[in-house]
Amino acid sequence: MSGTITEKILFSHIVEGKPVIGEEVALKVDNTLTQDATGTMAYLQFEAIGIDRIKTELSVSFVDHNMLQTDFRNADDHKFLKTIAQRYGLHFSRPGNGICHQVFLERFATPGKTLIGSDSHTPTAGGMGSFAMGAGGLDVAVAMAGEAFRIKYPKIVGIKLSGKLQKWVSAKDVILELLSRVDVKGGVGKVFEYFGPGVKNLSVPDRATITNMGTETGCTTSIFPSDEITREFLKAQGRENDWIELIADEDAKYDEIIEINLDEVEPMAALPHSPGAVKKVSEIAGIKVDQVSIGSCTNSSLRDLLIVSKALNGKTISEDLHLTISPGSRQVVEHLINSKDMNSLVQSGARILENGCGPCIGMGCAPSSAGISVRTFNRNFLGRSGTKDAQVYLTSPETAVATALTGVLTDPRTLGKCPDFEMPNKFEINDNMIIKPLPAEEAKNIEIAHGPNIKPLPKFSPLPDKLEGNVLIKLENNVTTDDIMPAGAKILPLRSNIPEISKHVFESVDGEFHNRAIENQGGFIIAGENYGQGSSREHAALAPKYLGVRAVISKSFARIHMANLINFGIVPLVFENSKDYEKISAGDKLEVVIGDLRGKALLRNISKNEEIALTHSLSELDASILKFGGKLPWIKSKIK
Amino acid sequence: MSGTITEKILFSHIVEGKPVIGEEVALKVDNTLTQDATGTMAYLQFEAIGIDRIKTELSVSFVDHNMLQTDFRNADDHKFLKTIAQRYGLHFSRPGNGICHQVFLERFATPGKTLIGSDSHTPTAGGMGSFAMGAGGLDVAVAMAGEAFRIKYPKIVGIKLSGKLQKWVSAKDVILELLSRVDVKGGVGKVFEYFGPGVKNLSVPDRATITNMGTETGCTTSIFPSDEITREFLKAQGRENDWIELIADEDAKYDEIIEINLDEVEPMAALPHSPGAVKKVSEIAGIKVDQVSIGSCTNSSLRDLLIVSKALNGKTISEDLHLTISPGSRQVVEHLINSKDMNSLVQSGARILENGCGPCIGMGCAPSSAGISVRTFNRNFLGRSGTKDAQVYLTSPETAVATALTGVLTDPRTLGKCPDFEMPNKFEINDNMIIKPLPAEEAKNIEIAHGPNIKPLPKFSPLPDKLEGNVLIKLENNVTTDDIMPAGAKILPLRSNIPEISKHVFESVDGEFHNRAIENQGGFIIAGENYGQGSSREHAALAPKYLGVRAVISKSFARIHMANLINFGIVPLVFENSKDYEKISAGDKLEVVIGDLRGKALLRNISKNEEIALTHSLSELDASILKFGGKLPWIKSKIK
Repeated sequence: MSGTITEKILFSHIVEGKPVIGEEVALKVDNTLTQDATGTMAYLQFEAIGIDRIKTELSVSFVDHNMLQTDFRNADDHKFLKTIAQRYGLHFSRPGNGICHQVFLERFATPGKTLIGSDSHTPTAGGMGSFAMGAGGLDVAVAMAGEAFRIKYPKIVGIKLSGKLQKWVSAKDVILELLSRVDVKGGVGKVFEYFGPGVKNLSVPDRATITNMGTETGCTTSIFPSDEITREFLKAQGRENDWIELIADEDAKYDEIIEINLDEVEPMAALPHSPGAVKKVSEIAGIKVDQVSIGSCTNSSLRDLLIVSKALNGKTISEDLHLTISPGSRQVVEHLINSKDMNSLVQSGARILENGCGPCIGMGCAPSSAGISVRTFNRNFLGRSGTKDAQVYLTSPETAVATALTGVLTDPRTLGKCPDFEMPNKFEINDNMIIKPLPAEEAKNIEIAHGPNIKPLPKFSPLPDKLEGNVLIKLENNVTTDDIMPAGAKILPLRSNIPEISKHVFESVDGEFHNRAIENQGGFIIAGENYGQGSSREHAALAPKYLGVRAVISKSFARIHMANLINFGIVPLVFENSKDYEKISAGDKLEVVIGDLRGKALLRNISKNEEIALTHSLSELDASILKFGGKLPWIKSKIK
Repeated sequence: MSGTITEKILFSHIVEGKPVIGEEVALKVDNTLTQDATGTMAYLQFEAIGIDRIKTELSVSFVDHNMLQTDFRNADDHKFLKTIAQRYGLHFSRPGNGICHQVFLERFATPGKTLIGSDSHTPTAGGMGSFAMGAGGLDVAVAMAGEAFRIKYPKIVGIKLSGKLQKWVSAKDVILELLSRVDVKGGVGKVFEYFGPGVKNLSVPDRATITNMGTETGCTTSIFPSDEITREFLKAQGRENDWIELIADEDAKYDEIIEINLDEVEPMAALPHSPGAVKKVSEIAGIKVDQVSIGSCTNSSLRDLLIVSKALNGKTISEDLHLTISPGSRQVVEHLINSKDMNSLVQSGARILENGCGPCIGMGCAPSSAGISVRTFNRNFLGRSGTKDAQVYLTSPETAVATALTGVLTDPRTLGKCPDFEMPNKFEINDNMIIKPLPAEEAKNIEIAHGPNIKPLPKFSPLPDKLEGNVLIKLENNVTTDDIMPAGAKILPLRSNIPEISKHVFESVDGEFHNRAIENQGGFIIAGENYGQGSSREHAALAPKYLGVRAVISKSFARIHMANLINFGIVPLVFENSKDYEKISAGDKLEVVIGDLRGKALLRNISKNEEIALTHSLSELDASILKFGGKLPWIKSKIK
């Protein structure tokens, strides 16, 4: 066995394929997690697969996204998720118990295990030495049914940490420092594995902040060793037995090494509207701020809120902004109350929100018009806050609290002496909001609660040899999954209702798309380069599929979205000659002979009486899945 | 001076009119309050009046309704309200500081003062011996400009309390008991004044719960004496100097007396969908419940949450429901944290929401489809929870917590020994989230923040002698202001934008109303009996006004809505002969000669070539206001 942690875990989990960079390998999945915004669809898919009980060691269903509940839909989803968990043998973390990644880290994450989660920040558990990856909901469903999860074998990048963070500087500044070096695509196809003498100076929550936001580099995952620090954390969680040591060998070989000297890291901020647009806070301090928001799966741990509390310590926040705090879990809240730190937060004037994702995903506390918001979150995409013209800066809790006190973006080192705080050596353990799996016999009697907003999945039919239809829309380069399938407080509650959410496909790009797709009984999408970049949401494939989209023909695809298209039976095809993009117009009638999907396909533009050569990068398995009409019919047939 | 408290306060505040039941009297207004959902419009109106600084002794602007902030609009409103307060000399209670009525009771309410508030539950301060009434926002604006507030002199009903509440029974059960006797219209034209030996056995928060929900009887207000109990409460709030004794004379004469023996009051519940549909909990116990919600201006005081905490005490809520708790104020929260009772709430599995109105006004935590929700709130109208088919029961905190533990509607007396709890004799006083008025000179420099959703008021033109137009809609009896102008999490954020909110007028009754009104350039509304019953929202007059509605012709009007129509220059006319209602159809072209508005008006149905006699019950002042086109141009002219 080779020497990196990544190799140690992957080698013991590969069930198919060879560990060659860029080659597909299939991994045994030990654990899965879902959150509610992606979970309802994942479990509808799991139901459709039709097996009797999950086959993973441990699967946990969380509720943390859709908690505003402005009508019946969220509450119905929560009931559905609870009954699904009870029916199929999952753990269920009730709404209010906390953010999936924070609670998973506290109560479930285990060094050496593989974890996939239907949320892109699943790598948080990498702070514990789990090999943890985000995935589409269908991939999670398929993993729960016992199938392996496929990735391209990654390049392993060693991040060598030395030194120790200065006062007022914290883990968030480390990941912002990394983002300033590699930007938002620098991690694609890579695992970031942390090692070196600086590792021991970071607590598990610190490490989890770093692996969480590592996602913003586009990497497959990030991982820290499991060492004595990890053992202490697990012990304090009453889980010492879950600990194993997992450290890279002395002679471990990395494909690349990046060095970060923690001594030299300064308070950093990501500027609007990219997590990669990083500058030193000291360079941009003084900007007038309208809102400060502390929390999210990146920075809502006890450690983060303790430093905030101590920094506030009897002071009142600026009159010119409001401060929101969303704790990561009930465990965090219990400690804050016991230590009276919660009173410090409340007395300062902070608005204490529910334990959940909250403002990070635009679920409440949207900034004012053109408002400047300083947030401890991991993403600052345009409009994600719920306010289209808001300007969001991403910082550490230290920078956030300094800003809350002064009213302007503030380098926390200007506040004077950095307060001390102590972490408990025994956490408050109270799992009463986690409903445990029922015994198999009892589980069979559970009736699953499908509320009226929870609609059955659309039908998937085998792929014909020839696809016919009209061009529904012609798009430029770099279309995002947000363009395809918008999110936010108004559309997220529709995530379990494909017919309804489909009405919003391409809404912000072309308000007529939905009607046109219906009138044409489906058809084709034509796009430029990098189609489907951004969030991994599978609804950006599933909803177009529902509207009858048969193929997307582009100059190139973003990786995860292409996988989602295949999963839902939409053929991703590429112009052999990019210039042929010009030969197709919106409304053209097309015919695509796809044949056996081994390398080529032929497009006939009937309206223009021209032929265009297409190609693709489908594996044999991809082609087979597409022939079945998608991964769901494929897995059903396979299991049968 | 006569002997009731009501007479003592009114006699010292009447500036015009005679204290004869049913006759209009004008009252000097000492204090005003607003909340944000009605406040933005009230302050736009105040701005339009054009005076430099408020003329009341004390006016407070609160933010407690629109706190979800799913986009920029709520945050913009909060900024607007803050800058208005600073510009014109008001106190401003920042979002998160608590519910207007709870915070006003703690920090501002004063025995013997008159208070009007743009919220129907303003009578909460009656628990402190204030004479406190709900009013339209324009009436509050006019009061801040120094004008008197006009009411019909009320019938004074003495509620004679004897005895002492049993264990597990509380103030909420008392007001539910009263509602079971007088129902939701039994208070119209009346003041409920509490007296008798039982009064001393109720704390100020208990009394405030009773006067708060007295609103549901339709009364003008409810009031308790200011006695030693009141003095103790004010002392604990550091406001002993605000205390005066205010007790009915021994020989006070009430127009009517209702007796309630507190010993005999049992746990009560209002059944769906009326606060007047009251039964004993013991008679209906056992109903399976999906949600329990504790809070609202009725039951979110420290006393209420302490009994809940003590009853939970280490236990876990039922797996089959969720429990939400919305504390009434930061003061309440600080006490709960200091006493560790907050930990008891959190450990039980309760979801702790922000300090605000929350689920009571459908702002989040809507129940599941057809869900059964047990709430400590004051209203259970169909759909108000945000879920159209939800079934809402109103109960005491004791009944609510018993239900949360068992999963079914539960008489708390079945829980066994009732826990004891102690109220502090010194409250945590921390007013740092209340921004104090600026000195007049400094205030003049404040720029008011009008975000893009805050639109100027529509123009009001003087009333012509003849009104012409088509019938836009013909309605049946008992149309509510909810029918006219819907509320909820989606429409409430539009409250400061009349052009936008007007698109929703009659939305649930007739989806085409808005377009028809625009096409016809306004016109007439024809209605049956009791037009405009329910909530006092002035948007139900202002938005139709914006759409060009010139008169409403009905068989009869609900009192507050008729006042709002007059305020906004829509003429409320009544068929002299009810049967003439049949002689008008939707779409008919009408012409109404209103003349001098002294008693009669003549309607010509041009489409049907018929004449119909109309009448009205306008006072001379009403007629004068209408002639000006509404109260705003009238007050402007008066002040000039």
